[in-house]
Amino acid sequence: MIKKDDTMSNDKKKQVEQITDMEQDFAQWYTDVCKKAELIDYSSVKGMFILRPYGYALWENIQHTLDTEFKKTGHENVYLPLLIPESLLEKEKDHVEGFAPECAWVTMGGSERLEERLCIRPTSETLFCSHYANIIRSWRDLPKLYNQWCSVLRWEKTSRPFLRHREFLWQEGHTMHETADEAIAETHQMLNIYADFCENVLAMPVVKGVKTAKEKFSGAEDTYTIECMMHDRKALQSGTSHYFGDGFSKAFDITFTDKNNRPAYPHQTSWGLSTRIIGGIIMTHGDNNGLVIPPRIAPTQIIILPIAQHKPGVIEKAEELKARLTESGFRVKCDTSDQSPGWKFAEYEMKGVPLRLEIGPKDIEKDQCVLVSRVTREKQFISLSDLETSVTKTLDDIHHSMFEKAKQNLENHTYAANSLEEAKSKQEAHGGFIKTMWCGEEACELRMKEEAGMTSRCIPFEQENLGETCAICGKKAEHMIYWGVAY
Amino acid sequence: MIKKDDTMSNDKKKQVEQITDMEQDFAQWYTDVCKKAELIDYSSVKGMFILRPYGYALWENIQHTLDTEFKKTGHENVYLPLLIPESLLEKEKDHVEGFAPECAWVTMGGSERLEERLCIRPTSETLFCSHYANIIRSWRDLPKLYNQWCSVLRWEKTSRPFLRHREFLWQEGHTMHETADEAIAETHQMLNIYADFCENVLAMPVVKGVKTAKEKFSGAEDTYTIECMMHDRKALQSGTSHYFGDGFSKAFDITFTDKNNRPAYPHQTSWGLSTRIIGGIIMTHGDNNGLVIPPRIAPTQIIILPIAQHKPGVIEKAEELKARLTESGFRVKCDTSDQSPGWKFAEYEMKGVPLRLEIGPKDIEKDQCVLVSRVTREKQFISLSDLETSVTKTLDDIHHSMFEKAKQNLENHTYAANSLEEAKSKQEAHGGFIKTMWCGEEACELRMKEEAGMTSRCIPFEQENLGETCAICGKKAEHMIYWGVAY
Repeated sequence: MIKKDDTMSNDKKKQVEQITDMEQDFAQWYTDVCKKAELIDYSSVKGMFILRPYGYALWENIQHTLDTEFKKTGHENVYLPLLIPESLLEKEKDHVEGFAPECAWVTMGGSERLEERLCIRPTSETLFCSHYANIIRSWRDLPKLYNQWCSVLRWEKTSRPFLRHREFLWQEGHTMHETADEAIAETHQMLNIYADFCENVLAMPVVKGVKTAKEKFSGAEDTYTIECMMHDRKALQSGTSHYFGDGFSKAFDITFTDKNNRPAYPHQTSWGLSTRIIGGIIMTHGDNNGLVIPPRIAPTQIIILPIAQHKPGVIEKAEELKARLTESGFRVKCDTSDQSPGWKFAEYEMKGVPLRLEIGPKDIEKDQCVLVSRVTREKQFISLSDLETSVTKTLDDIHHSMFEKAKQNLENHTYAANSLEEAKSKQEAHGGFIKTMWCGEEACELRMKEEAGMTSRCIPFEQENLGETCAICGKKAEHMIYWGVAY
Repeated sequence: MIKKDDTMSNDKKKQVEQITDMEQDFAQWYTDVCKKAELIDYSSVKGMFILRPYGYALWENIQHTLDTEFKKTGHENVYLPLLIPESLLEKEKDHVEGFAPECAWVTMGGSERLEERLCIRPTSETLFCSHYANIIRSWRDLPKLYNQWCSVLRWEKTSRPFLRHREFLWQEGHTMHETADEAIAETHQMLNIYADFCENVLAMPVVKGVKTAKEKFSGAEDTYTIECMMHDRKALQSGTSHYFGDGFSKAFDITFTDKNNRPAYPHQTSWGLSTRIIGGIIMTHGDNNGLVIPPRIAPTQIIILPIAQHKPGVIEKAEELKARLTESGFRVKCDTSDQSPGWKFAEYEMKGVPLRLEIGPKDIEKDQCVLVSRVTREKQFISLSDLETSVTKTLDDIHHSMFEKAKQNLENHTYAANSLEEAKSKQEAHGGFIKTMWCGEEACELRMKEEAGMTSRCIPFEQENLGETCAICGKKAEHMIYWGVAY
């Protein structure tokens, strides 16, 4: 039996009013949700944020899920130092050019001025290479499949919760291989792990592709990316995987003796995903009542609210259901505080808990409970004997409905264009991704940026033929490319 | 059937020779083990070390075990910034005096000189207090039970793997409570969690007690500690828990409305355990063949070595046993590489894998395998039908024998003394802990340091009456205290 939840107490209205409507001001809605759902707090240093327990719990679940996948595919975790000597950072020319402008520099240790200044890692390619030069000798030492969970620091001018922190948490994989083919296969494998994670765990559909030369990572030969579309139809680069060839190996003099007993340079990759993805979760799934968290990553998947909890046996029954569901492997909380039911409804809606379970005296009499989906607000009366089955199915349904909703947003707002003018007017009218043919020249990217305010997102692996000529310059087209306004 | 393992191939001898004998040079033995067992590597910055996969895997297991205990007792993880503005660090007088001399300072962001310099956190009390001032309003907000896993940096002059890094990994708990009693109970609870972890998981017996005023944490009212004795009879402070009273609350203006609607200052604790404990594991359990890792924390608990692996069915059987044991929840590896058995024996001894499982054609015929303990080197022939039971029991036996051995070291080398002269001569003759009565005056601690080279380790919770007067000055004694030479 299914009906719509139409509960809306005064308490709830009051609390929801604290969040700006997303239609009115999406940026303010986003900031409100980050603060009010207690994901984040500001700190005493500009651009550095505090991850509060609820925000950090999301990251822990992301970590746990990805780390399991990394280990399944043979990767090992390591920890390398926080600080990079300036001379080490400078060893690879393109890399230092990309990162030096946003490094924070340590110049004093205690009361002494350092002989060489040290930057706080903005990324760790140089540290890994310096280590690899020490430990790689023979083909028997390859591949090296290392990953690191840590924080990195980039001294940016502007900041926004999750999307742009001066310090953020991430993982960075750094691997070394005997051959280019093996390294390239690794970059694709890791991109696919990210894509599957986004789609199957975070319910975020992705576009997979390769970055243009202009947009690739400093020092990489190729950068692969997954691009997601947010609710406001802007793009979020959500995970990247880089193929370096042997450029760093040469710069850092990393050599190994190959199977033919000849010296050779190993081929390198790196790949990373950061707390930025939490911004993506919020902006993909959230609504005017607050967060909506995908069930497979939710710190609390089910919130149990006892109704008329002063009546005998209600709290006990609620706690019993909590124990039963916890035992079955669900992440469950039960709120027996003296706050009003209206307050509690609003609180857990704001926090985006995917499933609410209500149990009151009448339900207990009928040996049933009520399940309410955070997404559809559908109310189901279910028999307690079917509890685990119903909860499993409902959480799965919620995941799929979230994914489908996000996928429709992506598909409905991806537009083809045949000229720069058309691309510009479509972006202005609808936002979203604009797909065009492209000649491959950076000049056309610069024009698209200047005249239509869009950067290239990626050259998707799934190509379509939209014509023979570049939409910007009219010369022969090389690829179909996606453009967008990005976070 | 039990007999001694007397395998000693040439390969093995060669590899073992790479490690300095501990009796000859304990410090060199320690460094050799850290390097040769691939726990650690040096980096391009002095005093900052690389945790290699095997060393980091140890830390991951420590993290996982402790984090589970922290969560069971209601703690939540958070992440606070890496950098502390100088003005924030200065808010609590004793605290800044303790830490400022070893801070690393960031003075440049990109190409700009910062208006205020920022130190890389040496510990995060000030950051937590600044956050708590924002989020604590009422008694309903208390207790706050936060923990953080992160790295901290202390710009020390000397360094040694695990024992003293300029940057090290740790967890730091920071909690706020309505009352002093509740906060003090928390410090004891956390000290007990550390103590139980050391004894029941790391097989390291501890002495629990309180630090003297001289040795306590900068800014704390009381510091509780667990002290372990290493194989060379020096002391290692292995975990600490601090009670702060309301000193920081006042300095940071953290107030809450209590149950009587009056403003009050919350009472604070912090507690931490770091990668230093890995140094403790090495120096408690290691021997001249390398590491010995306690089974409950070992990254690999069982190494399976196929014997005569070229013979048909041997590798298959070894892999089958690996699958069976993995399925039962053991951490198992199987080495089917083409290295010689002698090399493999030495390699996994060096790495301290607690249990070696050998299986060869004759064993397969008899439906048995051989278990060899890393500690006792006892060889057991066990029936494959009893595999899981035998392995469980043997790993447990290994844990207990490691604990007993370490406990005997601790007990046999704890000496009572009635005068400074006696304390000094016992320390010189035997090392270890020297217990004496003490008047409570810092002057006597300074004399003990100067004349006998020992610092106070702790005033143990388990007091003994060794007399009525201070062993140093002869005045009335207040406590029995432990002295030692510490790492």
